[in-house]
Amino acid sequence: MPNLNWIDYLGLFGAFLSSITFLPQVYKAWKTKSVGDLSIWMILILLGNVSTWLIYGLVKNDFAIIIANSIILFLSLLMLFFKLSFKK
Amino acid sequence: MPNLNWIDYLGLFGAFLSSITFLPQVYKAWKTKSVGDLSIWMILILLGNVSTWLIYGLVKNDFAIIIANSIILFLSLLMLFFKLSFKK
Repeated sequence: MPNLNWIDYLGLFGAFLSSITFLPQVYKAWKTKSVGDLSIWMILILLGNVSTWLIYGLVKNDFAIIIANSIILFLSLLMLFFKLSFKK
Repeated sequence: MPNLNWIDYLGLFGAFLSSITFLPQVYKAWKTKSVGDLSIWMILILLGNVSTWLIYGLVKNDFAIIIANSIILFLSLLMLFFKLSFKK
């Protein structure tokens, strides 16, 4: 077991919150089938940002960054799919 | 000048992309005055996540984390304001 102090736990908490940030948005888009107000550029930049952090985490072998960004990548791809599928 | 290698530059690039992720969404909300499809929970969790990373960056004295999350905090507060101001 690694010896974690409170700041490491704060980082893990931040990573956890980051992971679930887009969950309510994906759920809302799926439930309402309405995505007209969502910016496609936000989703595209998010995909770029998350892919960058995923590579960063893989190179640095940072488990928290890898897990968090894998989850966000999955949610961003769902958002992109909804944005492109639902007409309004 | 600190001695940066390519992975540090990749992290800075990730921090830059993270900073501007919500810029198109804020612009779209402001221009259309339409925010009905935006999830208030996404915005609230985003505020929690960004505040956590800001504290993390301040304690660790990590300049990239502090700058990126200050910008995202500002953009999230704007999104929250728009979400609460515009009716639909």
